[in-house]
Amino acid sequence: MNTADLGLPVDVPSTALFTDQYELTMLRAALKAGTAERRSVFEVFTRRLPNGRRYGVVAGTGRVLDAVENFRFDPGVLGFLRERRIVDEETLEWLAGYRFSGDIWGYPEGEVYFPGSPILRVEGSFAECVLLETVILSILNHDSAIAAAASRMASAAGDRPLIEMGARRTHELAAVAAARAAYVGGFATTSDLAAGFRYGIPTVGTSAHAFTLLHDRERDAFQAQVETLGRGTTLLVDTYDVAEAVRTAVEVAGPELGAVRIDSGDLLLVAHRVRQQLDELGATDTKIIVTSDLDEYAIASLAAAPVDAYGVGTQLVTGSGHPTSSMVYKLVARADSADPKAPLVPVAKKSSGGKMSVGGRKWAARRLDADGTAEAEVVGTGPVPAELADRQLLVPLVRGGTVVAREPLDVPRERHIAARANLPLSATQLSRGEPVIPTEYVHGRSGS
Amino acid sequence: MNTADLGLPVDVPSTALFTDQYELTMLRAALKAGTAERRSVFEVFTRRLPNGRRYGVVAGTGRVLDAVENFRFDPGVLGFLRERRIVDEETLEWLAGYRFSGDIWGYPEGEVYFPGSPILRVEGSFAECVLLETVILSILNHDSAIAAAASRMASAAGDRPLIEMGARRTHELAAVAAARAAYVGGFATTSDLAAGFRYGIPTVGTSAHAFTLLHDRERDAFQAQVETLGRGTTLLVDTYDVAEAVRTAVEVAGPELGAVRIDSGDLLLVAHRVRQQLDELGATDTKIIVTSDLDEYAIASLAAAPVDAYGVGTQLVTGSGHPTSSMVYKLVARADSADPKAPLVPVAKKSSGGKMSVGGRKWAARRLDADGTAEAEVVGTGPVPAELADRQLLVPLVRGGTVVAREPLDVPRERHIAARANLPLSATQLSRGEPVIPTEYVHGRSGS
Repeated sequence: MNTADLGLPVDVPSTALFTDQYELTMLRAALKAGTAERRSVFEVFTRRLPNGRRYGVVAGTGRVLDAVENFRFDPGVLGFLRERRIVDEETLEWLAGYRFSGDIWGYPEGEVYFPGSPILRVEGSFAECVLLETVILSILNHDSAIAAAASRMASAAGDRPLIEMGARRTHELAAVAAARAAYVGGFATTSDLAAGFRYGIPTVGTSAHAFTLLHDRERDAFQAQVETLGRGTTLLVDTYDVAEAVRTAVEVAGPELGAVRIDSGDLLLVAHRVRQQLDELGATDTKIIVTSDLDEYAIASLAAAPVDAYGVGTQLVTGSGHPTSSMVYKLVARADSADPKAPLVPVAKKSSGGKMSVGGRKWAARRLDADGTAEAEVVGTGPVPAELADRQLLVPLVRGGTVVAREPLDVPRERHIAARANLPLSATQLSRGEPVIPTEYVHGRSGS
Repeated sequence: MNTADLGLPVDVPSTALFTDQYELTMLRAALKAGTAERRSVFEVFTRRLPNGRRYGVVAGTGRVLDAVENFRFDPGVLGFLRERRIVDEETLEWLAGYRFSGDIWGYPEGEVYFPGSPILRVEGSFAECVLLETVILSILNHDSAIAAAASRMASAAGDRPLIEMGARRTHELAAVAAARAAYVGGFATTSDLAAGFRYGIPTVGTSAHAFTLLHDRERDAFQAQVETLGRGTTLLVDTYDVAEAVRTAVEVAGPELGAVRIDSGDLLLVAHRVRQQLDELGATDTKIIVTSDLDEYAIASLAAAPVDAYGVGTQLVTGSGHPTSSMVYKLVARADSADPKAPLVPVAKKSSGGKMSVGGRKWAARRLDADGTAEAEVVGTGPVPAELADRQLLVPLVRGGTVVAREPLDVPRERHIAARANLPLSATQLSRGEPVIPTEYVHGRSGS
């Protein structure tokens, strides 16, 4: 693979400009100071979960790997940097040869995380690692926020499938990444064709109110849709009068009608009435799909309603109140040279002001209780305690610049289901609460 | 221009897949029913502003024009639709020749809007217009949300410049659009190199805590930065002890030091102390830049503090609590044929459930009081009242498929400043309130 893969329906040549300018000015100054090649360890973590959330969901890792692989400075980009005088000639020359050659470890995609979890660890020279800050954070902060909302919605929905339909409520390319993250978090399908094209996620969709309004009578619209898409289609029944539309729908399609969609009103009440009417009309197998500003709470409130599937838009793609994940990318250890044998010195910002970090290259493990349920996120420096050796959370993702952990999207989706199932039961309570397991720090003697 | 222009640092060939599947299935059914060519009018509007907001800001219009121009179904896309059996061969053939050939009118970018404002009006055949729903809404819903937050921050900041630095908190390409929208809303610069490359927005950035931590002493880091970037650079002074860092910074750079940046702590308190210290050290011209989870309220609270510039990230790119704009794209009128003389029939969803629309092809004008201050958003169908003839808000953007309204990004930026200045004074109050002017509807006799 030699083109960037950002969740676009097309390839783009480079991810190198998804970068904040200060990364290049730091590089320039470090090259001049002779410190650019110091062996360094950066970690991605969050100081807290969004208010009230009990767990986070790692998503976007696969996109990060593509972005790192395609982080290259082509002549167009170098010309821009030269023209704007953002860096000098020496730095431009260094950038022209840039290929990430270090190692990346991380929580596998779909895994859950907690405050302080070292979700990603990037190791190499300061120069090669510092440049990746913005693109890595953009991807993980966005995708994990969507996946966390999706996971809550999926646990609220139980066995009923969730349809992602939020493309119109977010940036057109963020939408493609959101559909991917939603799938990792437990959604079944998406309305976004670009997400189907790019990631193979199953796509769905039938019609909007405009289609009914285009025709002289609702019956004409239903007829046209059934003739074209078959009796198994989903008819939208809330353009005019719902009861009349349901009657017409079954008249037109017969009891083989696939589903009706309700997009407004008191969904709990309307779903019960429509179910009763469908049953009375003999359309006992016709399903009911509801859509209309749903979030995890609305989904949960419909648990006892005769609803067969949920379509979710705005609240999914905006992270249900938490559109970003507050992950940061921090230098946690560095040597005084490029020598792989030079000792790593733990470093951390010390100034008071609520942005403390824990220095040192970290490992992480999830401690289980006797029943195999997670009881703590253990984060440490130095040697891993023997009893946690087989509970390590960080896996190799990139070795010597080569991606070693590609996987099809169903793998993180299944992994997330398993990881969530292993948390204490209160993890899936929707009410606000603390992280469902505490984070414990174990400080080793050495930061390396 | 023949490649898509989505605010990417690169061109992509088509925007046609930024589409919800139902648009294609509606097209397919309408082609079969013989209704696809009916002359139609779709409008973009919002039923309400985000809770407490007093005005909205139109942003993304320029990106919409590019997206419409590049909405093409190339062989790769057609192959995907065929393989997934989303449409039939007749529809594929129709799509292969797709070029939008209709007219688009809209509020010019940077203009303010209110509930019911017809922000964009798309006219053509049902078939050609229905396909554009998702991509138009994605762009306007995202970009307008960011611009609205930017505008509030800009009025809170007064004459002090705002730096956009949120790329790491949102999707990597949403970030580029966000920087653009922030500029329209009043920001001065961005840290995002992709936004500088793509839109020519001025970029800024110097260093992070990692740069200080990389070096053996803070003094070494400052020295390296000043030697490379000059005395006019901005030194980050809150890695260890702020007072010590400020002393070191002035020792290293002299009183010509450009600025210091403070990224944590009680910014009000710290800014006052740092200002006093800088003045005592003779660095009276050295500026103070603050960054650290700022929003419009935090900016306003620093109005009396000795701060020279604000860097804003998370709260900007997430719309300061309102990451999307709830705009919808609705069929409001249609004829019973393609004949341009066939009368347009106003249409609207009728079902109760809080999603009412107003049918008919609309005009909009802003009525001014005797002092020239806006006093109402007037939206109507039928003839425009004579007294509002020169207050029309909709301008032609696309005529017969050709974009007629491209403009450099400084134009909507200036337009926004003028439009906001024309609102009643309470528009820029940060406290929650109602839309600053009411929307009045004038119903004409004809929907055409």
